Parts: sequence; structure tokens; C-alpha cells
Amino acid sequence: MAHPYFDAEHSAEVVLERLGPRTSARTREVMSSIVRHLHEVVKETKPTHEEWLEAIGFLTRTGQMCSDWRQEFILLSDTLGVTMLVDALNHPRGGQATEHTILGPFYVENAPRYPNGANLCLDHKGQPLQVRGRVLDLEGNPIAGATVDAWQTNEDGFYDVQQKGLQPDMNLRGVFASEASGAYWFTTVKPRYYPIPDDGPVGQLLGSMDRGPERAAHIHFIVKAPGFQPVITHVFPPDCPFLQKDAVFGVKQSLIGDFRKTDTGWSLEWDFVLERAR
Amino acid sequence: MAHPYFDAEHSAEVVLERLGPRTSARTREVMSSIVRHLHEVVKETKPTHEEWLEAIGFLTRTGQMCSDWRQEFILLSDTLGVTMLVDALNHPRGGQATEHTILGPFYVENAPRYPNGANLCLDHKGQPLQVRGRVLDLEGNPIAGATVDAWQTNEDGFYDVQQKGLQPDMNLRGVFASEASGAYWFTTVKPRYYPIPDDGPVGQLLGSMDRGPERAAHIHFIVKAPGFQPVITHVFPPDCPFLQKDAVFGVKQSLIGDFRKTDTGWSLEWDFVLERAR
Repeated sequence: MAHPYFDAEHSAEVVLERLGPRTSARTREVMSSIVRHLHEVVKETKPTHEEWLEAIGFLTRTGQMCSDWRQEFILLSDTLGVTMLVDALNHPRGGQATEHTILGPFYVENAPRYPNGANLCLDHKGQPLQVRGRVLDLEGNPIAGATVDAWQTNEDGFYDVQQKGLQPDMNLRGVFASEASGAYWFTTVKPRYYPIPDDGPVGQLLGSMDRGPERAAHIHFIVKAPGFQPVITHVFPPDCPFLQKDAVFGVKQSLIGDFRKTDTGWSLEWDFVLERAR
Repeated sequence: MAHPYFDAEHSAEVVLERLGPRTSARTREVMSSIVRHLHEVVKETKPTHEEWLEAIGFLTRTGQMCSDWRQEFILLSDTLGVTMLVDALNHPRGGQATEHTILGPFYVENAPRYPNGANLCLDHKGQPLQVRGRVLDLEGNPIAGATVDAWQTNEDGFYDVQQKGLQPDMNLRGVFASEASGAYWFTTVKPRYYPIPDDGPVGQLLGSMDRGPERAAHIHFIVKAPGFQPVITHVFPPDCPFLQKDAVFGVKQSLIGDFRKTDTGWSLEWDFVLERAR
């Protein structure tokens, strides 16, 4: 061993030379990266003992905030841009295919299947929005029979699952199928921005970074079709004041939609472009 | 803002450009380092969605393992060499002064004060060890009236506080004062190696790195004298099989003592060298 005993100069090497022969190649790769960068952070920031204890306390409280219905470490990953980065590395954009963004914690399986044209809004609040578009392949050919699974907050900025009993079940959720022309369409309401849960350690961290908890307004979609890669994505209205301040960095330029004012509310033309499965 | 929306290439910049004007200079410095290195780790290791979830789960379980008597995040910091690095950066060695190492979780305030020569071992197990030495300044002058606070495991590898009722209270703990010549001396037993708690997430991580949970055998010391910087340190017997495998990287070359076999057990000559307070 080149460094059998601790020395600050070679501190990462000291740790990594200890990896035993039965360490898997992947563990070796991941722990080498983590240990090197962790030690770099310590060397760059030179924490006092008190700051180190503060970091230990922050991580401990973050773990202890987690429950069946709250995942504070995912929230931490989200608010530091890590979730989006992992998503981006796993879903490099193929040509002009619709870009991915994060799934979020409010997706529900088995939302109702509706015929095209149905209205997702069961609580009759908010400004009506007509969404229509097509599901296409990279060459612009229509994809028939694709499923378009949509969900969003209501006018008050809450998902149905956050307000059990206050909102109808499955409010603002629905699954549609594209027609032979690739077309899908439905009625909903213009989505509202809303805060991520900020009453825990992550909210305190956001505060110390002088950042807000707001997520930019959006409609979520998962679009799937046989023979194509599914896409998990959002569409954002361009007039949301939090587009450039989205707490989880979910906004991509290509996902900002052309929401237009109409006599009765709003309309949005929004196509999805899928890549073929590899 | 140069990067208002997420893009993978500039992902750390996207996050750091969001730091608001009321962020403190220190928070800005620390979060810049953390976010840049965190994103580098993600880019180097390209975790799958499942690996990312595994990391979230690991951190969550680590937080949830913590209790009033168990601090699993400190254990994680210890086993990744972070605790030693923070300690080393906060206590750069001054000349030939005795080097620092970690305090550990088993220190107890108000251990009994004994006259020099007393025996710390109250459970009458193990191989007797005579420790003697001097407390000196950097020029080799004796420091009188220094306190030498010593504690260690018993022959079975446990501290008294880990075996309440099984060991006498304050077994193998004691505070001595140096004489006019700087001399201190006491009787104890040769320390034994022991495992850190490895029944939690950190133990699993050690296992996946093919590392053991053993701490090399050691006696802990805190040595203090008016007008001098206190030192928190260990002394290690040179024949411990875990010297180069200490789970928390606490061993420094200069802290390995010259333990000698005698007719009745062992002896150790061990001087402490203190720096003047700054």
C-alpha cells in the first residue's frame, strides 16, 4: 500500500487504496468518484468542526423527514439539479424528439381512460384550456394508438392526491389514445404554479440559498406507443412567473408551449415526437 | 442569467446561477463546491435511475438509523476518511507537536482524577501495561500541571459505556496531572481492537467495499495545559493486525507507540508535545 496511514495531502488515495479485491468494478468506479470529490469539497471549503457537525445534522434531519408519503432526499436531489441531470444522462435527446423531464412524486397509475375531447377537470375551477396535437415519429409520420397520460394541479395549485376529500378522486388526470392521424385532444384548465414541500431541511436549505420553493406551472405527460421509447415530460405555459426559477430545474426551453388566449379561455397545440425503441 | 433553463452540459452553472443575492458568502462558497462536485460525480458515474434510487435509499436509511445513541452519518463520514480530513485541516501539525486524531463517540467528561501511578483497569482483565512519559513544549521543556485524560476499551474490546452493568463504571478511564518534570504515569491494560457498529447502512457499504469494521487497538488521550493548544489523540500498539486497516483511518505513523514486552506484561514510554496557544 502506497499510503497505509492517513495523511491529509493524499487523503482520498488513503481511503481508495483500502478497497478490497472483492469490490465489484462498479462499486470501485462509483466509490472512487464519490470519495475523490467528497475530499475535494472538504479541501476547498475547509469546514470547521462546527460546520461539519451542521452538515451531519442536516443529512440526519433529511433522512428522518422521510416517510411513506415524503421523500426529502429526492427533494434534495431535485433542488440541487441532480435528478434532472440523472434523467438527462439516461435520456439523451434523439434528434427533435420531445425532451424528457422529471416524473415527480404525484403520478398515479391507472388514471381513467377517456375518449378524445373529454374534460379532465372534475372540480370546475380555473380557466378552461383546450389541448390538441399529434403524436409523431422522428420523420413526422403519425403514430396511431399511442397513449397520452396527462396529470396536473388544480386551480389552487394542488394535485388530487394532496387533497383527498377536498378534490374529486382523479381530478385533472386522464389517459387518451391517438387516432389514425396521430391526433389527440382534451379539455383541462390552465395549470398553476405551486410550492414543493418546504417545511423541512430542504426548505431551510433553499432559504439559505435565497431561492423559492415554487415549481413553474406545468402539465405532466407520459406518452407511450408500441415500438417507440416512452417519454416522460411536461409542457409549461410561457407566462408563468417561475419559468426561470423552477425549484427543481424541470424547465427545458423546448418544453415551453404556445398557450393562446381564446374567447372562452386558452388553447394549446402540442405535438409529441417519439424515437423508435432501440 | 446565462443559463435560465436546464441543460446537462452546464448543469452545475444552471443551479449556481440561481443563488439569490441574500445568500451569505460562506453559503455561496460551500454550495458552489458541493454542487459542482456532486454534478461531476453524476457525470463521471452516469447512474441509472435504479442506482440513483439506491443512493436515495442508502442516505434515507442512514438518517433513519440515527438515534440518541447512534450517529450513522458520523460513522459514514468516519469510514470515508472525511472526519480525519476535517480534523487534519483544522489541526495542521505544528513542528513536532503530537498529532491529532479523531475524538470518537466514547469520550466521557468527568472521568476520575487519579494520582500518577494509579491503575485504570477496574475489571482485572487483560495484559497489564505501564504507561509513562512527559508533557513537553516544542522546545522540549517540561510542562507541569498538564492534564492527561486517558480512555480505552477493555480486554473484550468494549468501552465501559457500551457495557453498562457488565463493566464497572469508569473502567479504563482516568485523568492525571503532569509533575514538575512534565512526567505522568499510570497502569492500564494493553488495548484491544474492536469493530465499529456494522449492523446498519454503513456496515453494508463497508461490506460492498470489501473492508472490515475493525478499529486498530488504541488508547485515547486528551492532553491540556494552560497557555497551550489541547491535543486530542491516540497511541497505537505496533503489533495490532488492523493498523493499516483501521475502519476510520485514525492511525497516523507518528502515533504508533513503542510498546515493549516486560516480565509482567507491557510498558510504553510516550511523550506528548504541545504547541503554545495562538
